[in-house]
Amino acid sequence: MSPEEFRASGHQVVDWIADYLRDVREYPVLAQTTPGALIASLPPSGPDRGEPMEAILEDFRKLILPGITHWNHPRFFAYFSISGSGPGILGEMLAAALNVNHMLWKTSPAATELEQVTLGWLRQWLGLPGEFFGIIHDTASTSTMHAILAAREAAAPQARLTGEFPALVLYTSEHANSSVDKAALAVGVGLSHIRHIACDDQFRMRPEALESQIEADLAAGLTPFCVVPTVGTTSTSSIDPVARVGEVARGFGLWMHVDAAYAGPAAVLEEFRHILDGAAQADSLVVNPHKWLFTPVDLSVLYLKRPEVMRRAVSLAEVPPYLASNDQAVNLTEYSVQLGRRFRSLKLWFVLRYYGREGIAAVLREQMRVAAELTGTIPRDERFEIAAPTLFSLVCFRYRGSDEENRELLDRINATGRAFLSGTQLHGRFVLRLAIGNLAASREDVMETWELVRSLAPVPTDHGSVPPGSASPA
Amino acid sequence: MSPEEFRASGHQVVDWIADYLRDVREYPVLAQTTPGALIASLPPSGPDRGEPMEAILEDFRKLILPGITHWNHPRFFAYFSISGSGPGILGEMLAAALNVNHMLWKTSPAATELEQVTLGWLRQWLGLPGEFFGIIHDTASTSTMHAILAAREAAAPQARLTGEFPALVLYTSEHANSSVDKAALAVGVGLSHIRHIACDDQFRMRPEALESQIEADLAAGLTPFCVVPTVGTTSTSSIDPVARVGEVARGFGLWMHVDAAYAGPAAVLEEFRHILDGAAQADSLVVNPHKWLFTPVDLSVLYLKRPEVMRRAVSLAEVPPYLASNDQAVNLTEYSVQLGRRFRSLKLWFVLRYYGREGIAAVLREQMRVAAELTGTIPRDERFEIAAPTLFSLVCFRYRGSDEENRELLDRINATGRAFLSGTQLHGRFVLRLAIGNLAASREDVMETWELVRSLAPVPTDHGSVPPGSASPA
Repeated sequence: MSPEEFRASGHQVVDWIADYLRDVREYPVLAQTTPGALIASLPPSGPDRGEPMEAILEDFRKLILPGITHWNHPRFFAYFSISGSGPGILGEMLAAALNVNHMLWKTSPAATELEQVTLGWLRQWLGLPGEFFGIIHDTASTSTMHAILAAREAAAPQARLTGEFPALVLYTSEHANSSVDKAALAVGVGLSHIRHIACDDQFRMRPEALESQIEADLAAGLTPFCVVPTVGTTSTSSIDPVARVGEVARGFGLWMHVDAAYAGPAAVLEEFRHILDGAAQADSLVVNPHKWLFTPVDLSVLYLKRPEVMRRAVSLAEVPPYLASNDQAVNLTEYSVQLGRRFRSLKLWFVLRYYGREGIAAVLREQMRVAAELTGTIPRDERFEIAAPTLFSLVCFRYRGSDEENRELLDRINATGRAFLSGTQLHGRFVLRLAIGNLAASREDVMETWELVRSLAPVPTDHGSVPPGSASPA
Repeated sequence: MSPEEFRASGHQVVDWIADYLRDVREYPVLAQTTPGALIASLPPSGPDRGEPMEAILEDFRKLILPGITHWNHPRFFAYFSISGSGPGILGEMLAAALNVNHMLWKTSPAATELEQVTLGWLRQWLGLPGEFFGIIHDTASTSTMHAILAAREAAAPQARLTGEFPALVLYTSEHANSSVDKAALAVGVGLSHIRHIACDDQFRMRPEALESQIEADLAAGLTPFCVVPTVGTTSTSSIDPVARVGEVARGFGLWMHVDAAYAGPAAVLEEFRHILDGAAQADSLVVNPHKWLFTPVDLSVLYLKRPEVMRRAVSLAEVPPYLASNDQAVNLTEYSVQLGRRFRSLKLWFVLRYYGREGIAAVLREQMRVAAELTGTIPRDERFEIAAPTLFSLVCFRYRGSDEENRELLDRINATGRAFLSGTQLHGRFVLRLAIGNLAASREDVMETWELVRSLAPVPTDHGSVPPGSASPA
């Protein structure tokens, strides 16, 4: 493709994106399609001859778009809501054009150093100490896998050579994200050695239960090595008591990795700085700018107190000759399983500068205000109840009825295409989750979605109670 | 950022990219900077207030660009040369705007299905059997880590629960990429249990040496579990005898993972189809469209013969409630450590369609023709010799002098900024590598670079030998 052909197509694509960002509300949030529909609409084999970009873009609009679930829609309230912001998209455009791989400092000094600079800025905004070294991964799963790998190295340094590990035990809460379990499994921790510590009634890890479990495991001859508390769990956004968990971890000499993937950015607000209390004592911490910091996927940040342990954990006996480098500089590939690295910090730099600390804080503050308002509004309809404390921008609630009625309600909401919510299980009951996070989500989006939920919920019988057959209200 | 502000900035950025693609030759290929230069030029803290996009883009041009090593430059001949092609950049633009995460089918059906469709097309073009299931990862390191994880699961299925692994031994060649070792290390194979099987004089794994080593390890009570042959090694692009290696692997019941990250795409050419002979019998295979298939980083493809083993390898006891889904469809997150997934297949679809099979084959064929021509040209200057067979588009050569003279020559070449080559070590001697792979690289780029190399090489003394103090020619 000649530069001039790229220019012409590029302008078309920019116009399409601008129209999309303006008109995204016209799309159903959740794709209204069936499994196999796109596969059936595409040829079984690729074309022998090249095709004009015009035709490809036309197929993108006609065939791909109907199968897209619009994560960039302001009424995407499922899982954790995210934003592909304008500055972030511009950053990705330039990163794709430069197409650098900064595995070594010299293979793109600016990409290596901008990663250090942006993660330094973010670290300061989160109130974390200067000793944390930051590195970008694709997802929190990968960041956490690396953290556990470093914890493994710290606990069993000889095993890097021998492959003979003691029976390593990892601790996290029953509300931790499944990525913690998958990451531990990947690096060799048996599923039977992953302890899901019980939570209190607000879904927070109980430090005394953690302590007893560690003692029991030590008594059983096992080797506790890593504790993973969460700041902003996936089901309810609850906050484990990181400071106390850290005391326990340090008491037993265990690695503490803090999973702040979703809620971490709230610490940019002075009045939420406390959510990371105790995190300064962590060995590692993950926060995802691609979740609640307006950065397009993927961009997860892993902070490491002792990067040299991470480096040792993924180091070979010698640097291969084709990667030899004499630079007195950081070669990021030495800190990750991946050899290659995409220039992800560029989009983060664009986002941090375009919005600024105060701009980011203002958006997060408003989203949390709206979440609090919704939390106050929901119980005014007596058919509904709040199912967990609203700490950030996630509201958990349920219809005072059976799990089945709640599941059906969720399906009805999502089938309208006018909003997309998700569900989870709390205290054995199915609940609905409404997570505010998209930059373009307004108070009206949230409140109109709440009215949509109400309009689709079963109407109580005339004696004023919930329908027969439903569970009793909590 | 309003849609209209995005539109204005987006058009500016597209123009900048088009100009960049047109004028990229004006930039030094290897960044001419020193460690810390960018860090020193940026503020130590992020801005409190947001800044206009105009100012950010201006800093991108003034501060970032001088620190970029231009991987998208036609005279980037180091490592493996890659291309951020026009269609690929357009695909990344749209992926960033949609910002979907297709962890589950329903969270973007089109992203899940387009991944299956594009990887099916590519599989057919490579001549691989229909039973291979494809999934996209960021890098070959991650693809290979997943393959070894599946191999571990196949060899020790009980260990997923217990964490008690036998002494697993992995086999690869002394010329395998270091990412194989790192991946094995990550999933718990001790470095002392990674065997680097000796190669023949053309840098190919010796199957009989592999066989003896496996027998010796079995006799020693160890547990061989995985063999990783390479099609296109990093140092020389040599091809391990995959068919024979596969016979050995199957004889002992081991998993075979083929690393075709770089050279795999050559199999799109009928006359190079044979390079994947034996790969149909592999359990898994990795090929990187972001290397020699014009796709911007990152996009690595992992093909799996038995995806159910991969699924089991990363599966937890139960699906977490917040990810529950009733769709009768593929949920890709079940096949990877990562929970989240970026919409990478879109750029690959654009590339495969825009160029078509014949268009891709024509570019690769011409690049290999030029590499062969250069291979024939180099020895005509008697100061130089070819250091390895040229099988694809990588030419390994050396100045008939000391390692020090070759290193100095490489540094002089790269310091000009007019081309970027890399080096490696072969038979204990330092050699230069010139890898052709960028879409815009012409025969003239290669030949003029060769003239640059010649002009910078030490001139022999008048009695016709190489300079005193240098090693004797081979």
